[in-house]
Amino acid sequence: MDKHILLISCTDELGLISKISSVISNLGLNIIIMREFVEEDSNIFFMRMELSGVLNSSLLFENLSLNVPSNAVIKVNPKEKKDLVVYATKEYHCLGDLLSRHHFGELQANIKAVIANHEDLKEYTEKFNVPFHLITHEDKSKEEFEAELLIQTQYYSPDMIVLAKFMRILSPEFVSSFENKIINIHHSFLPAFIGANPYKKAFERGVKLIGATAHIVNNNLDEGPIITQRVIPVDHTFNTRSMIQAGREVERSVLFEALKLVLEDRVFVSGNKTIIFS
Amino acid sequence: MDKHILLISCTDELGLISKISSVISNLGLNIIIMREFVEEDSNIFFMRMELSGVLNSSLLFENLSLNVPSNAVIKVNPKEKKDLVVYATKEYHCLGDLLSRHHFGELQANIKAVIANHEDLKEYTEKFNVPFHLITHEDKSKEEFEAELLIQTQYYSPDMIVLAKFMRILSPEFVSSFENKIINIHHSFLPAFIGANPYKKAFERGVKLIGATAHIVNNNLDEGPIITQRVIPVDHTFNTRSMIQAGREVERSVLFEALKLVLEDRVFVSGNKTIIFS
Amino acid sequence: MDKHILLISCTDELGLISKISSVISNLGLNIIIMREFVEEDSNIFFMRMELSGVLNSSLLFENLSLNVPSNAVIKVNPKEKKDLVVYATKEYHCLGDLLSRHHFGELQANIKAVIANHEDLKEYTEKFNVPFHLITHEDKSKEEFEAELLIQTQYYSPDMIVLAKFMRILSPEFVSSFENKIINIHHSFLPAFIGANPYKKAFERGVKLIGATAHIVNNNLDEGPIITQRVIPVDHTFNTRSMIQAGREVERSVLFEALKLVLEDRVFVSGNKTIIFS
Amino acid sequence: MDKHILLISCTDELGLISKISSVISNLGLNIIIMREFVEEDSNIFFMRMELSGVLNSSLLFENLSLNVPSNAVIKVNPKEKKDLVVYATKEYHCLGDLLSRHHFGELQANIKAVIANHEDLKEYTEKFNVPFHLITHEDKSKEEFEAELLIQTQYYSPDMIVLAKFMRILSPEFVSSFENKIINIHHSFLPAFIGANPYKKAFERGVKLIGATAHIVNNNLDEGPIITQRVIPVDHTFNTRSMIQAGREVERSVLFEALKLVLEDRVFVSGNKTIIFS
Repeated sequence: MDKHILLISCTDELGLISKISSVISNLGLNIIIMREFVEEDSNIFFMRMELSGVLNSSLLFENLSLNVPSNAVIKVNPKEKKDLVVYATKEYHCLGDLLSRHHFGELQANIKAVIANHEDLKEYTEKFNVPFHLITHEDKSKEEFEAELLIQTQYYSPDMIVLAKFMRILSPEFVSSFENKIINIHHSFLPAFIGANPYKKAFERGVKLIGATAHIVNNNLDEGPIITQRVIPVDHTFNTRSMIQAGREVERSVLFEALKLVLEDRVFVSGNKTIIFS
Repeated sequence: MDKHILLISCTDELGLISKISSVISNLGLNIIIMREFVEEDSNIFFMRMELSGVLNSSLLFENLSLNVPSNAVIKVNPKEKKDLVVYATKEYHCLGDLLSRHHFGELQANIKAVIANHEDLKEYTEKFNVPFHLITHEDKSKEEFEAELLIQTQYYSPDMIVLAKFMRILSPEFVSSFENKIINIHHSFLPAFIGANPYKKAFERGVKLIGATAHIVNNNLDEGPIITQRVIPVDHTFNTRSMIQAGREVERSVLFEALKLVLEDRVFVSGNKTIIFS
Repeated sequence: MDKHILLISCTDELGLISKISSVISNLGLNIIIMREFVEEDSNIFFMRMELSGVLNSSLLFENLSLNVPSNAVIKVNPKEKKDLVVYATKEYHCLGDLLSRHHFGELQANIKAVIANHEDLKEYTEKFNVPFHLITHEDKSKEEFEAELLIQTQYYSPDMIVLAKFMRILSPEFVSSFENKIINIHHSFLPAFIGANPYKKAFERGVKLIGATAHIVNNNLDEGPIITQRVIPVDHTFNTRSMIQAGREVERSVLFEALKLVLEDRVFVSGNKTIIFS
Repeated sequence: MDKHILLISCTDELGLISKISSVISNLGLNIIIMREFVEEDSNIFFMRMELSGVLNSSLLFENLSLNVPSNAVIKVNPKEKKDLVVYATKEYHCLGDLLSRHHFGELQANIKAVIANHEDLKEYTEKFNVPFHLITHEDKSKEEFEAELLIQTQYYSPDMIVLAKFMRILSPEFVSSFENKIINIHHSFLPAFIGANPYKKAFERGVKLIGATAHIVNNNLDEGPIITQRVIPVDHTFNTRSMIQAGREVERSVLFEALKLVLEDRVFVSGNKTIIFS
């Protein structure tokens, strides 16, 4: 018997779990793992279940729809292997890690293509038989650049876009075409050191920990819902350069960790926050 | 409206969550947080819920009993502040931390008494107006010593016994009088360095991390169900003495963390393992 | 044979270690551990040595003075047990931990007194036979308040002042009376969430880690040289209140860790940074 | 001006640092960073220096030799990029990470070849233009297998051999041909779970942390000098399979970290321990 994933979010109300679980048991399905959370401020109910048994997806969807509030978002068995397009620039560490893991099947996803505004990572990408598209931003307006980016991206109809150290700021228009579908790795422990040269700033401030943040991109730059954060210790012997090197290690591991959570359908977005059933 | 805790463990069966949540919603109670887990090997279902609403405890208990397998252990609102007796010997760091936290109400418990086989910690204990009982093990058989210990302990009818660096090994008979009710802090990262002088052994082995383990005591010495483990880095500049000092920090924090989980009714014991809804 | 500590900081120059170590070996002293660092930007040399052998302090000081740059700060065997005055307000967790550790001799220091602007921590402090002075800030100008604070503090001639959740901002004048001698625990992972209500801000931002920072106080509020930082994970189930509780654990451990480093003479201050030979 | 590395280990004696640093300053060299340690039990002195200035290597070596005990091991500017041969079997995660990092110049080394007793990793290895040699152990005595392994390895005259999940136990004879030159990643937090199936054992024991250990291989299997250890949390939702997956993440990061320390000449071996100047 297969394992199935069920995701529901809606306004909370009395007896919701009872109704949902009745539907499930009436269809002869068994609940293996269930996680739920009601966000106090918004009164929104979030639920993720793993089910076993013989599943009729549309029947489950229909029966659930009749029993939960009308604003409910219900997902039965969301795509198991999501299609990704990865954007990059010149820095290799995040892309290198993702492609190598992807090659060995460690990523529950298909990397359909890499799009970059520089050519540096072409050779490495093509080693793995993944298409590489160079879309330079030079001698173009932002609109033109993003129009090309959009067309090339849409060609692959990705479920998610991963910004693996993509050094261009995307416009609100572009971002709104992929709402809650773009994941970024931010090279600092947000909200510290927002903006350019975070490691230089961290060095000058004399911090003893540096970190990175993976987040969903929305239209407040550096301010989208946070998925994962991690830090590593540094000390007085570090300079800006060695902080950057150390930072790479955190960045790659944080991005992978966040992506894993998203690909396993464990991340809900609520306003500017995430609910994560890890 | 108050918050209520509901704990259930029983053999798993189809529709269990549906039945339980129906009982709950029929009584007008709302599920705030629900955690459940089915242990694959044993097929046992474990559940912890936080409920809000006006509660009739015996009615809830009765209705649940009618709807779950007959081997179910159901707890409705287990005692919110548990009574503890703490056993100690000479080492102060765990007891010192617990009494200081207890004084400030950080521990969801009443420390009814400290019992020790040495007098060293009497003065500190009594600063906090907690009774201190000296029960020396000297010039006594193990049976005699434990008989005295049992009587003094039972006087306080504790819900849990905390071994805060108590350096006597308790007999299977004694342990069985308090099944799954004794928490111990083991001065190593189990299963490494079982037995005496763990820090000396760790030093000699040249390890780069040392750790501690808080566990439920059963009749396999050092082998009971693990609640919490933590490690800290050490290096070549450490000797046995500085490892012991560093170890104290881990021991105190691990013991507190484990105790917190137990006192909040987040820990289920299954065979030699724990299920923890943190 | 005793262990001796030697600290030197001065402008770097060629052959400095050779000169210093010659002086030491000529006096028959042995170097057990030596740590040194030259800060690139400032060209300042920092050194900490542990020596064994029979020591004539003034002879060592004199001979060293003749061999190092004239701006050198040389300390031979700085006071082994430093005198501390602790400032507090109402929050108990940092003070509680320090007094309990101090009682058991875990702190290489004498806590001479606690001064607080509220009475809440009087009872606990006096349990440990440490003088408690209430200096309220109410109905006083900042100048008056600090004048009283200064007099009471100077009475004890402390080597260091520890701000254990002292909720008053000290004026530049006050701070300059104790240059690099005041340690503060800041309730956030600096430079994030500077200012009031850091946990509320952290909750609203939806961060996945919260942290604390122990730093030397200088005249840029929240901006002094950082000694230690630490973080712990939080998730969507935390609210502002539980973040504060979790934050307490980090705050107490970070403050203790930083204080330990300072008391063992392992921390040099250079501009707005620290060099730490841990 | 270049940066130079100087390593010395020898019996400790009075005035050693003075003598060494005099030699250095007499040659007009400047000490940037110096780390030293005297192991108490063995009375051995270990030192690592980074020097700047114009260096005459043989002159420095000669002058030092005249001034330190006769058992001294002195290394002036050990090979900056060491030659590596990597042994593997079927598991890809450690090798995959090393080859990807090597490709981008993150590893201060040349991976000269991969030798494996299975063919699985051939395709990936050759993507990076690194020679792959299959030496099967099947239908061969251990002697025959190791003889082939030795010949193929010696062809590359490696400075170090990295066992990246190589699942064959090397004989004492083989190991002694590469004394202190073989690095292994052990799939457990040594000394726990020595031997086969560590994750199965960890699952059965119900541990809350799993870890990995990178160590130098000597002739006590699983018992060589430890370089690096790291752990990650697990809980009751993990089974043996997901522990193995989680373990992979620790294994790859621990192996990389250890290798980095070794390649930067920061690791001294003393008996069964390491002294690491990180």
